[in-house]
Amino acid sequence: MDKSINFRRLIPDGDTHERDVCASCGFVNYQNPRIVVGSVVRHAGKVLLCRRAIEPRRGFWTVPAGYLELNETPEHGALREAREEALARLHLGDLLAVYSVPHLSQVQLIYRAEFAALDSDQPLFGAGEESLEVGLFDWDRLPLGDIAFPTVHWMLDHEREVQAKGYHGPFGNPA
Amino acid sequence: MDKSINFRRLIPDGDTHERDVCASCGFVNYQNPRIVVGSVVRHAGKVLLCRRAIEPRRGFWTVPAGYLELNETPEHGALREAREEALARLHLGDLLAVYSVPHLSQVQLIYRAEFAALDSDQPLFGAGEESLEVGLFDWDRLPLGDIAFPTVHWMLDHEREVQAKGYHGPFGNPA
Ligand SMILES: [Zn+2]
Ligand SMILES: [Zn+2]
Repeated sequence: MDKSINFRRLIPDGDTHERDVCASCGFVNYQNPRIVVGSVVRHAGKVLLCRRAIEPRRGFWTVPAGYLELNETPEHGALREAREEALARLHLGDLLAVYSVPHLSQVQLIYRAEFAALDSDQPLFGAGEESLEVGLFDWDRLPLGDIAFPTVHWMLDHEREVQAKGYHGPFGNPA
Repeated sequence: MDKSINFRRLIPDGDTHERDVCASCGFVNYQNPRIVVGSVVRHAGKVLLCRRAIEPRRGFWTVPAGYLELNETPEHGALREAREEALARLHLGDLLAVYSVPHLSQVQLIYRAEFAALDSDQPLFGAGEESLEVGLFDWDRLPLGDIAFPTVHWMLDHEREVQAKGYHGPFGNPA
């Protein structure tokens, strides 16, 4: 299959920004920033982390998170990602942080969370298809040298700040 | 120009969801939820509203808001929309609300704001290209019968709640 459409950069009628427009048929490939939804899951004084089975950053640790899908609320997206990546059913709490990664055109919505299914016979979590392993970490034994993305450092710091000082609204990018 | 690409719905290799894939060349048209960024601007005990010059809901009142662009932070997007639609330079404050409109695949990030340029000779605001008029409204004389979108009602209510009770984090969709 030939994956090259001949896109040209131009401003469509009634638009304000340049878009990729197919030179042969006029199809406009609107591209929007992407929304990442995820959660920092606390349990028994520990935090849940997943070791990535996929690129980018295969083998490094992150929280359950991924792209929001069409027709999905951020909360449902965060719950879905936790099911897919950590086989975990969660209760979501406050919105911990709204981070932006403009060079990747990403906005991240990160929630505080706990396990929902404490009374069941099922294990609380496990490694989903996109995870090599999933585990609970003591806050003073985090795998800080093997964290997948800068925003994961940010959210772990911010979660600790909430635990120390209470919740006063979502954090943004650190200065 | 023929705007019809022959898209088929299928799950690309390594993906988890159906996408629109061009039947002839394999181009994958990823579609993501869209992020709306906007602001509730307070000034002298009033709130700034814009009457829309464009569809949908031409002639109805809204706040300065629009789609986040690629490589833009939500804060910069909200400031840009206020410049474009209300010719206003703002200081952004707290994140007032995170609303989701899943049937439109929209997530809205709404900030509290004030005018930034109080000491200049310039007018504080004016009607940008997408606005028929822009005005400051007393809270007890809002054009509640002519509001453009449900989320605008929500954010006006939530702004009043913050003014009455202080800020305790962003609101979500009302129950
Ligand atoms: Zn084409
Ligand atoms: Zn094609």
